[in-house]
Formats: sequence, C-alpha cells, structure tokens
Amino acid sequence: MSLVLDPAAQDLLFREAHTANTFSDEPVTEEQVQAIYDLVKFGPTAFNQSPLRVVLVRSPEARERLVAHMSEGNQAKTATAPLVAILAADNEFHEELPRLFPAFPQAKDAFFSERTSRESAATLNASLQAGYFIVGIRAAGLAAGPMTGFDPAGIQKEFLDGDHTPLAVVNIGKPGDGAFYPRSPRLAFDEVITTV
Amino acid sequence: MSLVLDPAAQDLLFREAHTANTFSDEPVTEEQVQAIYDLVKFGPTAFNQSPLRVVLVRSPEARERLVAHMSEGNQAKTATAPLVAILAADNEFHEELPRLFPAFPQAKDAFFSERTSRESAATLNASLQAGYFIVGIRAAGLAAGPMTGFDPAGIQKEFLDGDHTPLAVVNIGKPGDGAFYPRSPRLAFDEVITTV
Repeated sequence: MSLVLDPAAQDLLFREAHTANTFSDEPVTEEQVQAIYDLVKFGPTAFNQSPLRVVLVRSPEARERLVAHMSEGNQAKTATAPLVAILAADNEFHEELPRLFPAFPQAKDAFFSERTSRESAATLNASLQAGYFIVGIRAAGLAAGPMTGFDPAGIQKEFLDGDHTPLAVVNIGKPGDGAFYPRSPRLAFDEVITTV
Repeated sequence: MSLVLDPAAQDLLFREAHTANTFSDEPVTEEQVQAIYDLVKFGPTAFNQSPLRVVLVRSPEARERLVAHMSEGNQAKTATAPLVAILAADNEFHEELPRLFPAFPQAKDAFFSERTSRESAATLNASLQAGYFIVGIRAAGLAAGPMTGFDPAGIQKEFLDGDHTPLAVVNIGKPGDGAFYPRSPRLAFDEVITTV
C-alpha cells in the first residue's frame, strides 16, 4: 500500500464519491458548511492568497434568480438541491495579502499591482480551493454536484460584482434516488504522467 | 462533529499538513506516484474532461533545466526535492472527450470547438485537479511544495508544447529539517462565505 490515508477515507473522498444529480430533502446546515470551511481553509494557495469566495444561495427568491442563469440541463437539480453554492474568485484578493502573508507583506505591491496578474492568480488559486472545497463537501458525508454550465455574466451581475468572477456552481446535499450516473472512464497513468 | 471524515485523515490532508520548503533524501517511488494518480483521477471535472497533465522531472539534466526557469527563491528547494512535478493544462483535451464522456460524445464539438473556450475550461478544470493532486500527495504521507513562481513561457518551451500551459510546479517528498514555515492566518468564515 503506497497510500497512508485510511481506505475508508479514500473511498469517502474519491473512490466511492460521485457527482450527484439528484438530492434528498435533508437540509445542509450552517454547522456543516462551517465545518467544511474550517477544514479546507488550510489547503495551500500561492502566498496564502486564499481568493475563493462562496455565496450560499438559500432563499427561494435567490434560488429562482440563480436557476434562471443555469444551463437548461442544470436547472432542475439546481432548483431542488438542499443547498447551492456559487464559487467565485476575488480578483482584489491582494488587499488582504499583508494580513494573509505576513512573512512578505510586500507581495501585494511586488507581484499583484496589475489587475491582469491578479486575475490569473485568482483564477488558478480559487480553482485549487474549489478542488479542496469539493473534497471538503465529501468529508462532511455529503455529495457535491459541481457545474460550469451557466451564464457567468448573469451570475456575476446577480450575485457578485465586477471584482468577483464565478468559477463553478455546486449543488450540495445527500444523494437522492438515481443520483449517480455510471462512472466515466479515466485516462490511464501513462496518458497523463510522463517522466523526463 | 459535522464532518464524517476520520480526524486522523483531516489532519493528514489539511489540518496538520503544511507546504514543505526542505525535504529529506528519501526517494519518491513510481509506485507512490501511481497510487496518488489512481486515487485522485476520480476527482470530478466538467464533462470528465480531465485536462491535467503531469511531467515528473527526475533526471539531473532535466532538473537543472527546470531550476533555471524557477524564481530565485524557489530554485534551491526545486534543485533538492526528491521529486518535482510540473502540472499543466492540456488545451486540446477535447480530443479525448468522446472517450471520456461517452454519455454525450457531442460535447467535443458542441462546447469546445473554439480554442478560447477550451483554454478557459482547461485552466479551471486542471486547477481543480491540481487541488486533488496536492491532496493526493498528502494521502501518500508525503509533503507537497506547490509553487507558481517560475517563467511559464520558459517551462512551456523546455518541457511542454504550445498546447499545454504550465499551472504549477510541485516539490514532493518527506519534509526535511526546518521544512515548515509558521502557519499563516486564514480568512474568517464570514469573510469568505455569504448567504443570500
């Protein structure tokens, strides 16, 4: 065994975990979301820039506004999931850098004075954090249904602002009937990993 | 307890895990890399597009070429880590889509016929997978040292091609003396997560 992670944890987070497309009615509590964040906030980002921002869409009115911006195939599940989260990148994350990276507070001005470099750093690092967040949802015994099929400009206008870019919308809850599609094939090791 | 993941696994993957800046001499084996991939390959991506590609830089000659493209502060650790991996996004991932997403083989042409949409999808989804990969390194009992301080054009030219964009370079191994800097502060829940 080359992994030291407990096999049950491997199953919970990766091997047995599946993207869910239907959900039960069981609510996702604030305590669960807090526990997920308190775990995954430790995942590494460059300069600890931590650019991920999350909007939890809980009210029926807000849910309706969100569903209108989802692709047709994503609307029904987004309308009925116990909780839906918009994951976004904060392109002005550098404002927090002196506090977040006290070892080198100059990083804010030295590396991120230009918006274009901030945007590419925010997209990369918030996407890394989105990966951690999906793992964290599973760590809470919940299923995630991450989606990128939506109108980004519409979601940005409705729920964010010009400084925040939506990356993914994630349905969260206990899986319902027929939640899982068959596992799609994965690339072989040699198709992904080469050695020089 | 709102998490169902075993507390030891929480510590291994997030709470006690730290970015490493020095490493022991213990090698990282092919078996370990295979085990990491065989775990994290199951992490979800949009349409199962799986755009992450990894170059393991093992030979001294290749390592020297890589170090030349790293930022000065990253050179010493990249020169001495037991294993270094270049994580890249394959912007031509759509060629594999009919095989990877048999439920909707038309996705290749319906959504990804344009290079610009492929590039943004590849960056987002390969970054998600980079997050899973870092978690997987920790699942193998190893420390990760992910870095974005390098010359992307130089690394692309030396190790990749015009269709592959480098996202991060990751040092991998058992931590050495003084491997860890103090944990930097994290944002509070309310600074990251809002509810509507």
